[in-house]
Amino acid sequence: MVESKWPLIPVEEAKAIIRAHVRPLPTVEVRFEAAQGLVLAEDVHAREPMPPFPASAKDGFAVGASDTTEWRRIVGEQFAGYEANIRVEPGTAARVTTGAPIPPGADAVIMVEFSEVRDGYVRFTRRVEPGADIRPPGQDIAGGQRVLAAGTVLGPPEIGLLATVGATTVRVHRRPRVGVMSTGDELVEPDEQPGPGQIRDANRFSLMAAVREAGAEAFDMGLAPDTFEALEAFIREGLERYDAIVTSGGVSMGERDLVKPLLERLGTVHFGRVSVKPGKPVTFATVSGKPFFAMPGFPVSSLVSFEVFVRPALLIMAGWPPDRVERPRVPVVLDHTVRHTAGRTEYQRAVVRFERADGRFHAVTTGFQGSGRLLSMVGANALLELPEGRDTFEAGEVVEALLIGPLEAPSRREAEKRV
Amino acid sequence: MVESKWPLIPVEEAKAIIRAHVRPLPTVEVRFEAAQGLVLAEDVHAREPMPPFPASAKDGFAVGASDTTEWRRIVGEQFAGYEANIRVEPGTAARVTTGAPIPPGADAVIMVEFSEVRDGYVRFTRRVEPGADIRPPGQDIAGGQRVLAAGTVLGPPEIGLLATVGATTVRVHRRPRVGVMSTGDELVEPDEQPGPGQIRDANRFSLMAAVREAGAEAFDMGLAPDTFEALEAFIREGLERYDAIVTSGGVSMGERDLVKPLLERLGTVHFGRVSVKPGKPVTFATVSGKPFFAMPGFPVSSLVSFEVFVRPALLIMAGWPPDRVERPRVPVVLDHTVRHTAGRTEYQRAVVRFERADGRFHAVTTGFQGSGRLLSMVGANALLELPEGRDTFEAGEVVEALLIGPLEAPSRREAEKRV
Repeated sequence: MVESKWPLIPVEEAKAIIRAHVRPLPTVEVRFEAAQGLVLAEDVHAREPMPPFPASAKDGFAVGASDTTEWRRIVGEQFAGYEANIRVEPGTAARVTTGAPIPPGADAVIMVEFSEVRDGYVRFTRRVEPGADIRPPGQDIAGGQRVLAAGTVLGPPEIGLLATVGATTVRVHRRPRVGVMSTGDELVEPDEQPGPGQIRDANRFSLMAAVREAGAEAFDMGLAPDTFEALEAFIREGLERYDAIVTSGGVSMGERDLVKPLLERLGTVHFGRVSVKPGKPVTFATVSGKPFFAMPGFPVSSLVSFEVFVRPALLIMAGWPPDRVERPRVPVVLDHTVRHTAGRTEYQRAVVRFERADGRFHAVTTGFQGSGRLLSMVGANALLELPEGRDTFEAGEVVEALLIGPLEAPSRREAEKRV
Repeated sequence: MVESKWPLIPVEEAKAIIRAHVRPLPTVEVRFEAAQGLVLAEDVHAREPMPPFPASAKDGFAVGASDTTEWRRIVGEQFAGYEANIRVEPGTAARVTTGAPIPPGADAVIMVEFSEVRDGYVRFTRRVEPGADIRPPGQDIAGGQRVLAAGTVLGPPEIGLLATVGATTVRVHRRPRVGVMSTGDELVEPDEQPGPGQIRDANRFSLMAAVREAGAEAFDMGLAPDTFEALEAFIREGLERYDAIVTSGGVSMGERDLVKPLLERLGTVHFGRVSVKPGKPVTFATVSGKPFFAMPGFPVSSLVSFEVFVRPALLIMAGWPPDRVERPRVPVVLDHTVRHTAGRTEYQRAVVRFERADGRFHAVTTGFQGSGRLLSMVGANALLELPEGRDTFEAGEVVEALLIGPLEAPSRREAEKRV
């Protein structure tokens, strides 16, 4: 009896091994406009308070709040962007626009909606308290305040904050550069017509898309050469160029499965089989300190393995806080029987929705869950995690789900329509 | 008393007006590798079945399932990628690798793990049923089957499917090209040191990032000129170049707020005020059939208005199915009192998590909710939608939330640790 030399290890052990071997990439300085999706490697502080001066929150009139004069003389206008040379004395008011500095002497703003102007005088239909519609200096940001902490992923509001405080160059972790290749003598390029025994390569393209979706840069290494020597040169070159390599295929027990033996020669194979379905032969190695992720060749196996094992690793390399790299997990009610064999942790593709009627998450799988059936991933927003210890789950039972896409959550209106 | 000429309309009415005026952009043919994130404008069918031939699902031996010979002669090997000239007769077996075509005469595969080889012969420690570990033609995709429907957003598995079926050129909706500009005399570029009464522009950069996050292309139009004539020329040029324009500022009631009067002259202003907080002066117009979204000038107002009004519109322009452009909505329990004034629908920024202990979503707001405090959006994964009709909500009450980022959902393990 032929046995794999690689012990089957549990999913969580495999994930822990990967985590122990990947670390954030070095930091670089980039312009803030180019930093979207990257992770701050330093705290960012505001030099000045925001707003930097007492600013009008509305279009209207700057006044003395305690002034009881009915018709007040308009002493001038203070638009935004400069400091007009005007002063608000009792019996006067100044026009102000949103964002304008409050002229000296004024301590409140009355909205234009509550004003009546006649012959250079204004009266108001409403009284206001001192401070009304004035944004005091530092209301939004105190001078010297830390506005963003190291480890923050830079999205739209964070990019805006960098602009606000003038942090136009920021230190971030480098975006991981990931080389992606496919192995398999049966593979032809998508533009080619497959001959007998051949199929088109799909994994390289879906994995490159998944790498990009994880915020990393994907590089197409092409189809691997089919001899040990050529493959070795090919991989060595890739390791020089990229921060990590993701391959698919070549990790089964066939004689032509060159990847594991080659990785053993080049570096250290940390695991070669995981008790997971799909994706049992998934392999993780480091070569010269760089992570090498070898996915199985079946299209679903490669994408699910990427999701479970590679994506969190790429986020850690990109500098994400380790507690944010995993997908959200929720308990879901199965809407139908789900067949499962007890031997391995199984990830089934499913659509998970939040059901207002019972306040619970519900899951429907995406049909036949064959490892080759990429269609089972189309439209899926979740992976159901069926544990090793037991078999088939009945409708109504609760399992864990990883949310890999936006939740289906009908609005209250839609939910009401259904009833 | 000065009144805005624009009626305050409800949020849902404003959203309906926008929907009535935006439509999917024209379609273009693109290479499948460049189609990530775009939306299919045509159904895609498979020409051939997948797998195209009976294929081995494992590394092992192709056999006759009913053959009872103990030691079978190995007649050859069938690797993946070609058709070997071998035939499996009773008393024989052929080596096969994963993905290899099944040689004629064989009707099952026995995994290498259950084989023992000696002197060119093999015996097995396990019997199998006919069909075992053979993937029949069409198991994953039937010949002629529609694999992707028009309206599908192309992510990693869909890109892989396009490769599999050889659909290397696909018709998709064009990615929206969106010009983004800021107006406001108080604004200086982020690299500049603001003078008296000035602040740095943040909105243009946060809005461009939000445009990109919505899958569209963002173009920096810069700071708007401050005269009516110059602004008109500027906007006309932008409308020629881009599919839509997003501005911020210049929509209040100040005399220098040129955007609305200009839009009235250039095209049709469909609404000029919405009963929403933040973002009351948000404005929507069409000029020569192109949508023009004028966001308010406060940083939070502009980003929240973008989220509520612009993002769904850009997705519709990109060809997304209308029922998928809104964010998921869930009911959340407030963990603390939330102040709200009854007059308008208010969107407060919050962190929403799913709590296993009571099986409900819980929300904590992100601190002071001032319209200028961009920090209130940092780390927020939800907008709480507080309705017009009533004021302050107490801790424990349930409100609606729009999930704008991944849910916080501690794993079962983490949840257990907390107890």
